[in-house]
Amino acid sequence: MSSLLLSQVLTLSHAQVVIEAAATVAFALSGLIEAARKRLDAVGVCVVAGLAAFGGGTLRDVLLDRRPFFWVQHAGWLWVLLVLCVVAMFFMRSRHFTLTERAMQWPDALGLGLFAASGTQIALGASMPAIVAVLMGMVTAVCGGVLRDIVCNEIPRAFSDHRPYALCAFLGAWLVVMAERLGLPDWLGLVAAAGTATLLRVLALLLGWRLPAWRAD
Amino acid sequence: MSSLLLSQVLTLSHAQVVIEAAATVAFALSGLIEAARKRLDAVGVCVVAGLAAFGGGTLRDVLLDRRPFFWVQHAGWLWVLLVLCVVAMFFMRSRHFTLTERAMQWPDALGLGLFAASGTQIALGASMPAIVAVLMGMVTAVCGGVLRDIVCNEIPRAFSDHRPYALCAFLGAWLVVMAERLGLPDWLGLVAAAGTATLLRVLALLLGWRLPAWRAD
Amino acid sequence: MSSLLLSQVLTLSHAQVVIEAAATVAFALSGLIEAARKRLDAVGVCVVAGLAAFGGGTLRDVLLDRRPFFWVQHAGWLWVLLVLCVVAMFFMRSRHFTLTERAMQWPDALGLGLFAASGTQIALGASMPAIVAVLMGMVTAVCGGVLRDIVCNEIPRAFSDHRPYALCAFLGAWLVVMAERLGLPDWLGLVAAAGTATLLRVLALLLGWRLPAWRAD
Repeated sequence: MSSLLLSQVLTLSHAQVVIEAAATVAFALSGLIEAARKRLDAVGVCVVAGLAAFGGGTLRDVLLDRRPFFWVQHAGWLWVLLVLCVVAMFFMRSRHFTLTERAMQWPDALGLGLFAASGTQIALGASMPAIVAVLMGMVTAVCGGVLRDIVCNEIPRAFSDHRPYALCAFLGAWLVVMAERLGLPDWLGLVAAAGTATLLRVLALLLGWRLPAWRAD
Repeated sequence: MSSLLLSQVLTLSHAQVVIEAAATVAFALSGLIEAARKRLDAVGVCVVAGLAAFGGGTLRDVLLDRRPFFWVQHAGWLWVLLVLCVVAMFFMRSRHFTLTERAMQWPDALGLGLFAASGTQIALGASMPAIVAVLMGMVTAVCGGVLRDIVCNEIPRAFSDHRPYALCAFLGAWLVVMAERLGLPDWLGLVAAAGTATLLRVLALLLGWRLPAWRAD
Repeated sequence: MSSLLLSQVLTLSHAQVVIEAAATVAFALSGLIEAARKRLDAVGVCVVAGLAAFGGGTLRDVLLDRRPFFWVQHAGWLWVLLVLCVVAMFFMRSRHFTLTERAMQWPDALGLGLFAASGTQIALGASMPAIVAVLMGMVTAVCGGVLRDIVCNEIPRAFSDHRPYALCAFLGAWLVVMAERLGLPDWLGLVAAAGTATLLRVLALLLGWRLPAWRAD
C-alpha cells in the first residue's frame, strides 16, 4: 500500500470512527427521548436507547449469521450507553426534547448514510445477492428505530411519517453494489453511498419532501 | 426412480411452485392491505407486505439456524414483491380492499396448508422432535401474519379473532410426522398435511367455526 | 469429586430443577393471564404463555448462537405448557386472575433470580465480556415477559411500571461474574446471584421500592 493511500485510509477510518460514534449517540438519544416521552422507567430508557443504537446492526448480524456482534466486540459501548442514559436522566428535561431532536437530525442523517453503506458492504462480503445486500444496508440503518418504536408501542415512524428515510438508505446503498460490480475500491463505494444517502436525507429534511401516499378514494 | 414416479414428482413440484407463488402473493397482499389501512407510507407498505410474505419462513430458519433464507436463494422474489407493491399503490383503491381480502382467503388457505406442511418437513429433516417440528410448521404458516400485525401495532389476528387458523396448521402438520413415523414417502405426508390443513381452514371459513373462548365470569 | 461435594451438587441440581419448573410455570401463567385479559383465543393463550415461559432463554440463545434451545432438548415442556393452558381454560375464571397473579409473584421472583444467574453463567461460558454476560442474564430473565407484552400490544411492563425487576436481575448477575473472576466454584456464584436477585425483588415487592422516574418539568 502506498503511503499516500495509507494515510488516506487512516484519515478515512479516523473520520469514520468519529462519525460512527456521533451517529450511534444520535440513534441512542432518539431512543432515550421516545422512552422518556412514553414515561418509561430508568430500565426502559436504557433498553430503548440501546435498541435504537444497536438494534439495526444486531438484526442484520442475526440474519447474516455473523458473530460477534458490534456490542460484544466493543463492549465498552454498552458502558457509554449506560452512562449516557444516567447523565441524561439527571440533566435532561422535557423542554429539552424538541431541541435535542432537531439537533440530532444531522448526526442521525450521517448515521443513516454510514450504516446503510457499511451494512451493504458487509452483506456483499457475505456473498449476498445485490438486492439482499441493499436490504441488509437498510436493515442496519433503519431497524434500530423500528425496534425502538415497536417496544414503545407505536407504529414505526420509518414506515408511517411519509418522509424519505429508509428510501434514502435504499438509494445510497446501490452505490456500494455498483462500485463492487465496477471493481472500484471499497472505500470509494462506501464514501459515495454514505454521502449520497446522507445528502438525500438532508435535502428531504430541508425541502420537506414527502413519500407518495396511498390514494384515498 | 421409475419414470412413473418421476413424472409424478415433477408434476407435484410444478403444482407446488404454482401454489407457493399464489400463496406468497396472497400473504403479501394481506400485508399490503393492512399497511394501507393503517395509512403507512410507500416504504411501510413494502416492508409489511414483505414481512407477511417471508417473515414466517425466515423466523423458522433463524430458530432452526438454517441458511440461506428463501429470499436470499431466490432473491428475484424481492423484486416481485417490490413490483407488486408499486403496482398496487397505483391501481388499488380503498374500495378494493374488502373484495381483495375475500378473494385472497382461498390462496391464503392453500398457503397455510402448504407452508405448515413444508415447515414441519424441514424441521423433521433437521432432527427436531415431533412437537417441535409441528410448532415450526405453525411458525412458518402463521408468523408472517403475526409480524405484520405487530409492526402495524395490532394484536395478531391469528391469536385474537377466535377463528381456527393456526389450529388448522397444527392439526395438518401432524400428518407429516405420522407419515415419517410410518415410513411413508415424504410427498404423501406433505400432500396429506397440506390438504388437511387447507380443507380444515376452508371448512372453518364456510361454516363459521369458532375457537373455544375464555369463559367470561 | 468428593462424595460430600457430589451430594451437594446433586441436592443443588435437584433443588434447581424444582425451582426452574415452578418458575417456568409462574412465567407461563403470567402470559396466560395477560392473554386472557386481552380476550385472546385459545391459540393466542397458548402462544403468549409459551413466549412468556421460553421467550427469554430462546432470545438469549439466538443472540449467543447456541443450539439446541431448551424447549427442543426438553420438548416434553411444550406438552406441559399445552396441558397447563387447556386446564387453565377449563378451570380458571376472571375472578381468579388477581389472586393467581399475587400468588405467582413469589415463584416469579425465584425465576427472575435463577434465570438471570444461569443466563449470565451460560454467556460467560461462551466467552462473552462481563457486561455482555450480565446483559444476557437480564435477557434470559426479563425478555419472556417483554415478548409477552409486545404480542399483547402493551408497552413491556418491565420497562414501564417503575418497579425494580430487570434491575434486580442486573445487580444479582454481577455476582456470577465476580465469582468467576475470583476463581470461586460456579455453583457458589449461581446461588449467590440467584439468591441476591430474588431477595432484591422480594424486598422491592414488600417495601414498595420505585425506580427513579424521569423528572417532569
